[in-house]
Amino acid sequence: MDSNAKDRFISGPLELRDAALFTDLYELTMAASYFREGMTGQATFSLFVRRLPPERPFLIAAGLEDVLNFLQGFHFSDRAVAYLGSLKRFDPSFLDHLKTLRFSGTVRAVPEGTPIFADEPLLEITAPIMEAQLVEAAVLNFCHFQTLLATKAARCVLAARGRPVVEFGLRRTHGIDAGMKAARCAYIAGAVMSSNVLAGLEYGIPPTGTMAHSYVTAFPREIDAFRAFASAFPEHAILLIDTYDTIAAAHKAVQVAKEMEQQGRRLAAVRLDSGDIVELSRRVRAILDQAGLDYVKIFVSGGLDEYLIDEYLERGAPVDAFGVGTRMDVSADVPYLDMAYKLVRYDGRDVLKISQGKQTWAGEKQVWRERGADGRYRGDVIALKDEPAPAPGAEPLLRTVMENGRVLEPHPSLAEIRERCARAIRELPGELLRVRDAGSYPVRFSEALTALQRSRQAEVVAAEVSPITAPK
Amino acid sequence: MDSNAKDRFISGPLELRDAALFTDLYELTMAASYFREGMTGQATFSLFVRRLPPERPFLIAAGLEDVLNFLQGFHFSDRAVAYLGSLKRFDPSFLDHLKTLRFSGTVRAVPEGTPIFADEPLLEITAPIMEAQLVEAAVLNFCHFQTLLATKAARCVLAARGRPVVEFGLRRTHGIDAGMKAARCAYIAGAVMSSNVLAGLEYGIPPTGTMAHSYVTAFPREIDAFRAFASAFPEHAILLIDTYDTIAAAHKAVQVAKEMEQQGRRLAAVRLDSGDIVELSRRVRAILDQAGLDYVKIFVSGGLDEYLIDEYLERGAPVDAFGVGTRMDVSADVPYLDMAYKLVRYDGRDVLKISQGKQTWAGEKQVWRERGADGRYRGDVIALKDEPAPAPGAEPLLRTVMENGRVLEPHPSLAEIRERCARAIRELPGELLRVRDAGSYPVRFSEALTALQRSRQAEVVAAEVSPITAPK
Repeated sequence: MDSNAKDRFISGPLELRDAALFTDLYELTMAASYFREGMTGQATFSLFVRRLPPERPFLIAAGLEDVLNFLQGFHFSDRAVAYLGSLKRFDPSFLDHLKTLRFSGTVRAVPEGTPIFADEPLLEITAPIMEAQLVEAAVLNFCHFQTLLATKAARCVLAARGRPVVEFGLRRTHGIDAGMKAARCAYIAGAVMSSNVLAGLEYGIPPTGTMAHSYVTAFPREIDAFRAFASAFPEHAILLIDTYDTIAAAHKAVQVAKEMEQQGRRLAAVRLDSGDIVELSRRVRAILDQAGLDYVKIFVSGGLDEYLIDEYLERGAPVDAFGVGTRMDVSADVPYLDMAYKLVRYDGRDVLKISQGKQTWAGEKQVWRERGADGRYRGDVIALKDEPAPAPGAEPLLRTVMENGRVLEPHPSLAEIRERCARAIRELPGELLRVRDAGSYPVRFSEALTALQRSRQAEVVAAEVSPITAPK
Repeated sequence: MDSNAKDRFISGPLELRDAALFTDLYELTMAASYFREGMTGQATFSLFVRRLPPERPFLIAAGLEDVLNFLQGFHFSDRAVAYLGSLKRFDPSFLDHLKTLRFSGTVRAVPEGTPIFADEPLLEITAPIMEAQLVEAAVLNFCHFQTLLATKAARCVLAARGRPVVEFGLRRTHGIDAGMKAARCAYIAGAVMSSNVLAGLEYGIPPTGTMAHSYVTAFPREIDAFRAFASAFPEHAILLIDTYDTIAAAHKAVQVAKEMEQQGRRLAAVRLDSGDIVELSRRVRAILDQAGLDYVKIFVSGGLDEYLIDEYLERGAPVDAFGVGTRMDVSADVPYLDMAYKLVRYDGRDVLKISQGKQTWAGEKQVWRERGADGRYRGDVIALKDEPAPAPGAEPLLRTVMENGRVLEPHPSLAEIRERCARAIRELPGELLRVRDAGSYPVRFSEALTALQRSRQAEVVAAEVSPITAPK
């Protein structure tokens, strides 16, 4: 690692300078207090989603690669420490301590691309409490957003029933990083390509694209645009046919396709982006077929999500592929998850909060996934970390991926993560794969975890909830 | 600009390598076709929102600073060109052309922090068509997200009726860039501080924070945590009182506040993050007041947005300040805008698309804002670029900010943008400032623009929509 790179958290094509300050101030004020109190004990924080949102019968875990890169490079630059000093609220001894602080802990995590459910830890971080606390906001940010997006994309891919889904949403994602991660997450979840060229360079995701309305309007006549595009890209031409009148344009596309045939070429597809897609796709299919162009595919885009894809296919629209953008890439119906990073154990003591509606489960955990007779997953058990398997053949989801602040093995490739995700989704109960009114997946807590929770809860209630007497 | 920086688009603490590839592939395929056809004419693209979403009676324009930085540094690195070559679909002559391509155009734009409405251009870019086309995705990404966020934050600030709003959402924003821009946009819109420390360093936004539940649970007893925090931060202590039992904890906070008083210190505030906030805030206020601690403020967080803030205040909750996070920073009720970047003129010809439900207005434009007798804005006129003012005193919103690819003057400071935004919101009609059931703002199209649109539309319909005859 050269001296320049030391100040940066590298995330694909993005570099974040002074990454240790990509955090909430309270992490630093709490760390300062731990330092002042001499609290150096080991803490375990658990990252999980409190409840599944409506229409999300499962989540796809993602974001771990960024977390591990961040933790491995974690440090405070001189500039960062100087800035904290300028705030006039931290002791010089604490600031000195930050200068040499590195992340020295352990990470146990569910692999990216794995389906998970409410209360199941995506990861647990065990480290001296200052370190584990200081990384909270970044760890949450990376895993929350990517899990949100991979989950939404998986639903769109399921809705398309085997037809290709292409990620198209760069322009309306929430910023630069979101634009990149949307391509990565959609690819993990089974999208076949992305419009994002930089994602092609950085992640190896095949880039694809057609033409915009601006291209058509830049030419004197629509057919001129079609001809120019077909001659520039005889192998990849997809003509956008809704700029003026979709049916009229379909006839022009036929004309251009026939001209291409005379040169031994084939028009790849036409794209519909507006109007009544079911009706228009049928009429366009008929126009193409009547012209002997059954090989020309129909590509649809425009405000798509899993609900609309499902509806189009239910109604029999002859669509061959979908370009899915904004609604998938902002997870429009569920734009955030109730994901939290909570202390579950400190210095040998299992801890919990009992805030109304936000109670947490004490203790370090493991998640066991069990299969039914049909080979599909049939239920999970959330257990204490060191409990034995609840039944023969149950698979533990959390694996140790970092020790002493160093990753234990190279992160799997994107292709491997994608394959894992596809396989795992196929192994979920079928009723979880419906776009609407999906079933729910059985998750239970082990007896040992339940017993620990009851006892810790009773202790906390006795100690903290009873009305206190007047100040001494 | 050093050679290293030349390959990067610098955006605050983020660096994006090979930024010219932060685009959709179709921009490049269209550019390749323009190049092949010798289409080098000047094109004007207009960036606007097609319609206001529900509960967004106005939008706050933002993102221009990133756009101008991006355009000024726009170029294809050797690595980028080599990657495009590897795709085997671009001519070598086109790739050679990209190597020396820079953005040489003009940008006319509405200043950041300005309220805008449907169909009003946030900016217009005029440049040789290849250049103006290639920057589409990045320009949209920067302006779409920041406008979305500044608008949502402005609504939260309005709902708080003068009480401070603090931006708290870093952890659940959509990635790294979103986390930074959420702080920037909230500050533009009137939030007073942010929890994001890096936004403090990079943008000068005052950072703030309290403590997390993990801090409380790390101590053997809640009151130990309160005492430790108060002794570490005697000037800034805000105690989080909902970890176990809010009322019991309020009494403990009183005890700690009294201990602080004996040392000549004052507890700043308590924070509520869960439960029935209206009821709890009243009870906590009473507990504090009965103890003579009327100076201790009540800070509320937890799932806030403009609707909940408004509801709490309507119901009389004695809240002094709000920490607003996830729902503001993902604009949860409206997580995207229908923003588009459309060609309106090419090579002297005004153009439009007439796709169903997505028709655009032809021609380069200006937006004029008129004031009523009360000094407040009373309506806008969208006109052709070179029309005279529709009435004396009307203010043109779009100004030329870049010519020949160079910015004309330094971008305003964040403080200036924030002040502009606050002033402009105060000048909007009062009925637009309601959180629910707001009024709408009158926007009309000039006669000249309407006449142009009608004539171009008729021409396009005649040329493109009538059924074509069989292929020749």
